[in-house]
Amino acid sequence: MNRVAVIGASMTEFGNREGWIRDLLAEAGQACLDDASVSPLDVEHLYVSNMASGEFEGQTGIPNALAHDLGALPAYTQRVDQTSASGGAGIYSSWQSVASGASNMTMLVGGEKMTHKSTAEATDVIASLTHPEEYKHGVTLPSFAGLTARRYLHEYDAPRESLAKVAVKNHKNGVDNPHAQFRKEVDLETVMDSPIVADPLRLYDFCPITDGSAALLFCPESKAKEYTDDYTVISGIAGATDTHVVHQRADPTVMGAAYESSELAYQMAERDPDDVDVAELHDMFTILEFLQSEAVGFFDQGEGWKAVEEGVTDRDGELPINTSGGLKSKGHPLGASGVAQAYELHQQLLGEAGKRQVDAEVALACNVGGFGNCVTTTIMEAR
Amino acid sequence: MNRVAVIGASMTEFGNREGWIRDLLAEAGQACLDDASVSPLDVEHLYVSNMASGEFEGQTGIPNALAHDLGALPAYTQRVDQTSASGGAGIYSSWQSVASGASNMTMLVGGEKMTHKSTAEATDVIASLTHPEEYKHGVTLPSFAGLTARRYLHEYDAPRESLAKVAVKNHKNGVDNPHAQFRKEVDLETVMDSPIVADPLRLYDFCPITDGSAALLFCPESKAKEYTDDYTVISGIAGATDTHVVHQRADPTVMGAAYESSELAYQMAERDPDDVDVAELHDMFTILEFLQSEAVGFFDQGEGWKAVEEGVTDRDGELPINTSGGLKSKGHPLGASGVAQAYELHQQLLGEAGKRQVDAEVALACNVGGFGNCVTTTIMEAR
Repeated sequence: MNRVAVIGASMTEFGNREGWIRDLLAEAGQACLDDASVSPLDVEHLYVSNMASGEFEGQTGIPNALAHDLGALPAYTQRVDQTSASGGAGIYSSWQSVASGASNMTMLVGGEKMTHKSTAEATDVIASLTHPEEYKHGVTLPSFAGLTARRYLHEYDAPRESLAKVAVKNHKNGVDNPHAQFRKEVDLETVMDSPIVADPLRLYDFCPITDGSAALLFCPESKAKEYTDDYTVISGIAGATDTHVVHQRADPTVMGAAYESSELAYQMAERDPDDVDVAELHDMFTILEFLQSEAVGFFDQGEGWKAVEEGVTDRDGELPINTSGGLKSKGHPLGASGVAQAYELHQQLLGEAGKRQVDAEVALACNVGGFGNCVTTTIMEAR
Repeated sequence: MNRVAVIGASMTEFGNREGWIRDLLAEAGQACLDDASVSPLDVEHLYVSNMASGEFEGQTGIPNALAHDLGALPAYTQRVDQTSASGGAGIYSSWQSVASGASNMTMLVGGEKMTHKSTAEATDVIASLTHPEEYKHGVTLPSFAGLTARRYLHEYDAPRESLAKVAVKNHKNGVDNPHAQFRKEVDLETVMDSPIVADPLRLYDFCPITDGSAALLFCPESKAKEYTDDYTVISGIAGATDTHVVHQRADPTVMGAAYESSELAYQMAERDPDDVDVAELHDMFTILEFLQSEAVGFFDQGEGWKAVEEGVTDRDGELPINTSGGLKSKGHPLGASGVAQAYELHQQLLGEAGKRQVDAEVALACNVGGFGNCVTTTIMEAR
């Protein structure tokens, strides 16, 4: 098996963007090629992580459009969809393409264009991933989040404020991320007093609707130095699935697919949770940061909230989580989010994260599809 | 690199089917597990080839639904989309998952549910893969086919009847395929007198709108004998892309991505076109069978039509093409088609094709997305 290096990374500004998904993908793709000084003609495989360009824009075949726009013909192209975990799934596909020897230069571009739709329309597209048996009752992902948050607070005697503190922390981090959608701090009162969306969760417990794109370039580690001295490696990667019917899970506060996928990723990397120096978790809703931080083994079950209360996951804490600002402040363009997590960790591991820089040799990203229906975990390391 | 074996295969009946895409995927998936006597719990990666369940049914996240329905949790799941080449792309993803060592047991299920939509609605969904610069002029894939057919007939002095003979041949083959949508012969006059769709092409030059699903099980060849003595291997596989704007191609009668992907697949398999005993080509339109049979090197450019006229590609000819009936008579449920091509070749290589059986040790499948925008070529061999 080829060991796989990440030799280039980019992301566009996240937020309300003009243009089509094609424009966003091409912007991130070109920036990534530039970052690594790689010619588009050297790209052998080109993956696009995207959930729903057909539903959002009436456009499909966007990997072909991207290969065309970048001048990367005749590269093999493919779209990777695993709903909101499409980015992590794209990293896994890219890893497999290089590790199997099928490609010596793989580019992944993740992206989504959403803000031209209303929040209700966008939420409906996302809700199409739920099981029809739940969907017909009007369930959406925010409503799952509300139910789960209520259960978590009850089960583990956690204060409502602990959830709000995830938002406060991640907004604070986002201030220093030039690509983030929201670059402003919010205080605890603002979160706690914001409008209720799915009780007990309020507006500031939710990530926004976002346009954006991010890209990565992968090659065998044996060839990485031909391009750059500043590369990282994927030391562990895996994915797993949980029940499609959310209410069938034995314990809704346990994110089974995050547990399973991180176990496999740790095994592959020969690492354990204590080795991780920095992590990007999929904080689509504040509650999800708690659930993942426990499922990937950073904290015991029901203890994730305490870590946030105690500042352990702050940028200057023992285990910084979501130094990028997370989905909460950076934004969540579905197919881009998992790729942008890896972009942040790549910057951190290379010491190029500017004001967000922490001390890190080993990094972990957890990208979640649906309400934990499918999760990919990626472990990246400095070289 | 692990050499990859196909140890199980299945397909549903193609045609007008009841139920949801989820039902079709589960039907093919379960039949494939049964074919190989593999437990769903042994499946480590599960890929779903599907173009547009969101557009056709308002349902996304179908890989999760399938893992759930088959009892394959916590397998890693992902959707693979490369428009009408999604099936071939799924084979490539599955191959990579095993060859890279990421999975020791990968299942691929391709499927599409389309017939509940009108032909116009379905054609519109498919046309969303075209470049906006062409789409805005009202272009659809059938109209590309008409333009290309006219050019081909002119350029190579081919008679209109040669195109019709592709339909006659493939319908004849389809009679003996119990899974085919149309199990009836058509004569030359019927094709030539059918209503014009995109001049010079007529109704019988086009594949139908179809519901259906097909599945394959892959594992390292080193483990195949633990499950079965009747397996095949993927000896070569690759994909390639052509311009997204079709009118920018230097020669519209040359299918560049089929040429590029087959070159790479032959190299990998250490085979050349003369070694191929049977092939499934993507005859979404009759003209496409000519273009692919030339691009993959079976016949010289502009000579494909002669092979059909001379019976070379008949079931009892020197190089049988589309023994399954092809997309033309078997039907074309987008995401399933590439998988069903491999199902047919698997049956042929194992000597299990019944009345359709030909003598074959080496087989080739060409799965086309868009109007040749992206193509995967797979070479399978008996063991």
